[in-house]
Amino acid sequence: MKLLEDRIRAEGEVLSGGILKVGKFLNQQMDPQLFYEMAQEWKRLYADAGVNKIFTIEASGIGIAAVAGLVFGCPVVFAKKGKTKNVSGGVYTTQVFSFTHGTTNTVLVSKAYLQPGDRVLIIDDFLANGAALDGLIDLVRQSGAELVGAGIAIEKAFQPGGERIRAAGVRVESLARIAEMDDDGGIRFA
Amino acid sequence: MKLLEDRIRAEGEVLSGGILKVGKFLNQQMDPQLFYEMAQEWKRLYADAGVNKIFTIEASGIGIAAVAGLVFGCPVVFAKKGKTKNVSGGVYTTQVFSFTHGTTNTVLVSKAYLQPGDRVLIIDDFLANGAALDGLIDLVRQSGAELVGAGIAIEKAFQPGGERIRAAGVRVESLARIAEMDDDGGIRFA
Repeated sequence: MKLLEDRIRAEGEVLSGGILKVGKFLNQQMDPQLFYEMAQEWKRLYADAGVNKIFTIEASGIGIAAVAGLVFGCPVVFAKKGKTKNVSGGVYTTQVFSFTHGTTNTVLVSKAYLQPGDRVLIIDDFLANGAALDGLIDLVRQSGAELVGAGIAIEKAFQPGGERIRAAGVRVESLARIAEMDDDGGIRFA
Repeated sequence: MKLLEDRIRAEGEVLSGGILKVGKFLNQQMDPQLFYEMAQEWKRLYADAGVNKIFTIEASGIGIAAVAGLVFGCPVVFAKKGKTKNVSGGVYTTQVFSFTHGTTNTVLVSKAYLQPGDRVLIIDDFLANGAALDGLIDLVRQSGAELVGAGIAIEKAFQPGGERIRAAGVRVESLARIAEMDDDGGIRFA
């Protein structure tokens, strides 16, 4: 998606170690107008998929997913990291290793919010090693809901997550696929 | 706002100890269409305030704030809890006690995303004791940005936060103000 690629080129920051900072428009600071255009693109790609629920993980996926829910006209559910007093009743849980934070989190969602009959589109900001996406897919499968696919904003195609998860039969639509990042800040899209 | 009050009556769950669960449409599961109507109401209330930035706190404020940013046509920034590898450079920090989790969190925002010249509307899902709102107000003031006010979805008006913060001169617009909750599930709006 050219709009997103242009934005990454203009405002993304490449740090050493394969880190791409897009905090100016996609993470800590968000551009909801951009999210709306991204959601329109996912809506076009998944037009006939009968999506009736969007699923993401806290925190940085929530903004994108909320706007996507507006465009798809369906509810949005986010998985939580760790335990909280405000999630009572039965939950599905899975384990997700965070490469950003170097920790393993228990990720959970209330059973009430993912159910058989739901046709679920997973939305997230990044796909790299695929650990978060694996976790969300696992939660959807535990629930008996139908997994329609995933909509990712930025895929680091030089990391193995996308290829592995597509090979396992999951449809993954990434709006910007980065083939290569140089330490001097250059970005090549796939 | 009648739409939100009706939704709270229909789908909110009153637990003992003054806890109101609205996870079905406002928190873990979100209704973006409702958020859009809420944002229209804040836009009406703050029509002449020149809002050019929306500010919230992770995690459950993000979805509401993202949709509000779409309606206001401005960027949305969220404060993070605790430290993370992906926030580099200067940050403003403050301390927020969470009554939900019983812990004190360091809450931070990059200096790059709140600046003098910004006219900031704080958006959050709940206002009760006001600890989170105090923290967000503190971060805005540290930054030199102008605080326009706050837009709250649900205010527990029987807890002291709203009264205290309004008395300190901050404009707070809550779309549903709960005067009383009974342990048998009854809710009376202010």
